[in-house]
Amino acid sequence: MTSAAYDNDNIFAKILRGELPAHKLYEDEDTFAFMDIMPRGDGHCLVIPKKPSRNILDVEPESLAAVMRTVQKLVRAAKAAFDADGVTIQQFNEAAGGQVVFHLHVHIIPRFESVALRPHTGEMAEQALLAEQAEKIRQKLQQNSGAL
Amino acid sequence: MTSAAYDNDNIFAKILRGELPAHKLYEDEDTFAFMDIMPRGDGHCLVIPKKPSRNILDVEPESLAAVMRTVQKLVRAAKAAFDADGVTIQQFNEAAGGQVVFHLHVHIIPRFESVALRPHTGEMAEQALLAEQAEKIRQKLQQNSGAL
Repeated sequence: MTSAAYDNDNIFAKILRGELPAHKLYEDEDTFAFMDIMPRGDGHCLVIPKKPSRNILDVEPESLAAVMRTVQKLVRAAKAAFDADGVTIQQFNEAAGGQVVFHLHVHIIPRFESVALRPHTGEMAEQALLAEQAEKIRQKLQQNSGAL
Repeated sequence: MTSAAYDNDNIFAKILRGELPAHKLYEDEDTFAFMDIMPRGDGHCLVIPKKPSRNILDVEPESLAAVMRTVQKLVRAAKAAFDADGVTIQQFNEAAGGQVVFHLHVHIIPRFESVALRPHTGEMAEQALLAEQAEKIRQKLQQNSGAL
């Protein structure tokens, strides 16, 4: 079960340390959620564990369980925020598996009937648009947490 | 948080009840893993909870955590069984999100450098090939459980 080492200088580690900005959506003791800056659809966001792990090959089960609890919260909030018809979840492991940043992360992408995922262009979305979408999701998260 | 109802006659519910066959890989109290019969790559397999849930919108967090513990076991075993370079995980919610069978399931797809995912053709793989691949994954699962 060999796996490459965790690199403390990956961009998600820098976001967790506050060294890089992010459109934050949610945070608890074990997890952090924020907008993907190269979204493949409106409301595309990411959930990561705070504990360093490269991907699903090396993550501790408890850390993964915490990530998925937050994923479920974000799925519900993002689907409601954009009145989406469905949600696609992706999680990539190692470069051949689609992974680009080597800190475990789960993609949450709201989906709409007859709308395909946008291709990976490598282009960043406008910050103002991401900020607006993030606010919509945070509002739904707040409503949902009040409802529970 | 409305969500469509769970249909007891979906094909994964029938597999769980033994009314339909499957190339079984793993089973514990809460989860079941088996080969996808329309694989998008060699070793493509699925993990489902035993408890009825339509998708991530309605699943109980404990059930989802159990699914992810099994996903991690299967990811490690499938990657090793096929000497894969990476693993892609997908989980689809509602038809617009890519969901076809309405019992929560997680796709695990071993990946290889420069090999794209096969398209969804709707064609079934040969049973003999699936049986052979299932045996490879089961062997690795057994080796890994011995190693822990």
